[in-house]
Amino acid sequence: MKHFLTTQGLDRQELEGLLAEAEEFVDVLGRPIPKVPALRGKTVATMFFEASTRTRLSFEKAAKALSADTMSFSPGTSALSKGESLKDTVQTIRAMGADLVVVRHKATGAPWRIASWVDVPVVNGGDGAHQHPTQALLDSLTLLQRFGTLDGVRIGIVGDVRHSRVARSDVFAFSTLGAEVTLVAPPTLLPVDSDGWPVQAAHDLDDVLPGLDAVYLLRVQAERGGASVFPSLPEYVRRFGMTRERFAALKPDAVVLHPGPMNRGVEIADSVADDPRSLVLDQVANGVAVRMAVLFRLLGGEGDE
Amino acid sequence: MKHFLTTQGLDRQELEGLLAEAEEFVDVLGRPIPKVPALRGKTVATMFFEASTRTRLSFEKAAKALSADTMSFSPGTSALSKGESLKDTVQTIRAMGADLVVVRHKATGAPWRIASWVDVPVVNGGDGAHQHPTQALLDSLTLLQRFGTLDGVRIGIVGDVRHSRVARSDVFAFSTLGAEVTLVAPPTLLPVDSDGWPVQAAHDLDDVLPGLDAVYLLRVQAERGGASVFPSLPEYVRRFGMTRERFAALKPDAVVLHPGPMNRGVEIADSVADDPRSLVLDQVANGVAVRMAVLFRLLGGEGDE
Amino acid sequence: MKHFLTTQGLDRQELEGLLAEAEEFVDVLGRPIPKVPALRGKTVATMFFEASTRTRLSFEKAAKALSADTMSFSPGTSALSKGESLKDTVQTIRAMGADLVVVRHKATGAPWRIASWVDVPVVNGGDGAHQHPTQALLDSLTLLQRFGTLDGVRIGIVGDVRHSRVARSDVFAFSTLGAEVTLVAPPTLLPVDSDGWPVQAAHDLDDVLPGLDAVYLLRVQAERGGASVFPSLPEYVRRFGMTRERFAALKPDAVVLHPGPMNRGVEIADSVADDPRSLVLDQVANGVAVRMAVLFRLLGGEGDE
Repeated sequence: MKHFLTTQGLDRQELEGLLAEAEEFVDVLGRPIPKVPALRGKTVATMFFEASTRTRLSFEKAAKALSADTMSFSPGTSALSKGESLKDTVQTIRAMGADLVVVRHKATGAPWRIASWVDVPVVNGGDGAHQHPTQALLDSLTLLQRFGTLDGVRIGIVGDVRHSRVARSDVFAFSTLGAEVTLVAPPTLLPVDSDGWPVQAAHDLDDVLPGLDAVYLLRVQAERGGASVFPSLPEYVRRFGMTRERFAALKPDAVVLHPGPMNRGVEIADSVADDPRSLVLDQVANGVAVRMAVLFRLLGGEGDE
Repeated sequence: MKHFLTTQGLDRQELEGLLAEAEEFVDVLGRPIPKVPALRGKTVATMFFEASTRTRLSFEKAAKALSADTMSFSPGTSALSKGESLKDTVQTIRAMGADLVVVRHKATGAPWRIASWVDVPVVNGGDGAHQHPTQALLDSLTLLQRFGTLDGVRIGIVGDVRHSRVARSDVFAFSTLGAEVTLVAPPTLLPVDSDGWPVQAAHDLDDVLPGLDAVYLLRVQAERGGASVFPSLPEYVRRFGMTRERFAALKPDAVVLHPGPMNRGVEIADSVADDPRSLVLDQVANGVAVRMAVLFRLLGGEGDE
Repeated sequence: MKHFLTTQGLDRQELEGLLAEAEEFVDVLGRPIPKVPALRGKTVATMFFEASTRTRLSFEKAAKALSADTMSFSPGTSALSKGESLKDTVQTIRAMGADLVVVRHKATGAPWRIASWVDVPVVNGGDGAHQHPTQALLDSLTLLQRFGTLDGVRIGIVGDVRHSRVARSDVFAFSTLGAEVTLVAPPTLLPVDSDGWPVQAAHDLDDVLPGLDAVYLLRVQAERGGASVFPSLPEYVRRFGMTRERFAALKPDAVVLHPGPMNRGVEIADSVADDPRSLVLDQVANGVAVRMAVLFRLLGGEGDE
């Protein structure tokens, strides 16, 4: 594995290997001193051309827990605003000593371009509505911890699937790991390219709800056109929101996931968000562990674990 | 001590214990390598919902001097601007591995709310016009270094006491340590709730000046309504400014403190700010030491000192 | 050496000493663990009153490679915006434990003022159109690596020399090291004070091109008035741009340098920027090494290298 850009095309063995490594880092993070010297002296650069404090901090925490240094590039005050090309910016960060680059960018495919420009590993921290592969790892790990396996686990992914990089990444990871994935969305919000995806589609959440083991609620993403594709937020809640009533209609051991940040009262009711069967905070905690696994794998750490 | 939120209610023994610990960290900071491994592997998160580079850097320096890692959350580019609730934001930072959260917030009481949402210690880095307890510790330490004890030391706190969290924190710390505190402000700028405070009040600075051992000058805080409560800045200077003339009227060994940032020429004259009896930079230096003491106490460090 | 503020007045021995030290740090940066404990426990503060992610990150990388901690002060959210004086801001950062301050400021001379206010070393990270001495070190190191010596090497510095702190710093470093420097600019963009400089001047790039060993292309700096001093960008390209044609007219082993960020298609053609004889990325990489040398020299590190 040279880069970590997408879950599409990863085989089951690769995914399970990463998740097993992540599980070891969950243990590390539970120790009194939650830190290993594995990547001492390495520098992990985060280049977030689209703002995301949450994901950036998670990658930086993962880097520090491996004893790597971090270099945080933010475009706001940078040479990009002086007209520098993306290629020159990235190669400059590399030349300064970045040993790995984590990229978030609003343009689909940007991490692949960047990977072609530098001789160090690139991790996709989210590109447009395309991929967000470490999110899929943390979601998979969270479900594995709950169910032991994903084989035969029925997962519904609910909401604006078309504009969601989370959904795209999850679909391939979940199904490769053996889950049965159902996309739940109005026809207009199913992906145009989903014909070949290993999924089923449904338009009515209440129809599929009783059969699901896990419900993955997507965020209503006003900033990527999500708000404009539904008539109104109340209409969204009525058709796709995980209300208290819908939560009651789930199997007793079914769980709810959300990539955060949550819009409480829209895609998820307050009481559901705070229920023990909401795994949102487990997802966040697992995010650090899976990112440690990815950084460790790509930087070939050989330190004492 | 589970959290560090206010000086109100702290007893003398607790305060003196923290200050003794801080005094030890003053020594550490004076060493050639001013760093101890006490909190290695711990992560201190700063969440400053109200901007303050100065206080944030001081806490981060304290954390690093204890070998802790830092995680700096700033709301500007964060999920909060995507509609996430404060509770979810804080719990997310906690789930990422924050072992302690330092909060600054413009709303009175916010750190208490946050402390009720997470299972790790919370430090109040300033909430509205309410409390700023580490400021009171650093002010107390600075006065202790000068006078040896605060018993019987007469301290005047001058300016817009009503809107000052610094004054509120200092009043309880100073008086618990034995000092005699006089608030000097026009009647409209004395706190409405100060009847039960262990202080005296005065309206005329020149009346009380000759009797004081220390004069604590509050900042004229335009950003919290301070500017609007005086007819004009020249009027403020005339009545409450520590001019060269007033400085000359002080006892020969009396000192001047200010929480910074100073408005030179308003609450403090240029020549006074640069006088050896202005302890402003001692306050800043002591800020790092008292924050080390608070972090160390709350995170139960047991490393080699 | 107490501060590092300018290349003007540095003698050859001092420059060569720093460059030799930097060459050793180039070796360190090439190791599997590119880090030495030389400055463990020291704190390097960056105070960039003028935004520059690139230079700030380079200094911070240098500090971390020496195991120092960093403290990053940015004026945007700071006390400066509450009316604090520059002097108080800098003394506050010092009192918090900064052992060295790196300053960038739009005002010529600001680093000298700051050096007069604090008792720790100050490094000029660029002041107005005046000096940027670590840039000159990294440029010199890059040329030394290529040519072995600068004695007799003919270097043309091309563009808006008048408004360039890079040019001012390079001129004195290059000529002190034995190079023959020619400034190439229209008469209006030669420095008004360059009469006493150890340089020649030319107005026509094509005249001097065939005799040069190295061409240093200055950035067209819209943000410092550069754009307004030429009739148009096409006119700039026509007279001073390193086009593919001009590149072909160079000696076969001549090299091209640029301080970055590049305006591709303006001062440098795309194909030239990507040519192996463009040393732009070597410059960036050497930037970390020379800054390590400066920090190490000023902080008198005695750790194990």
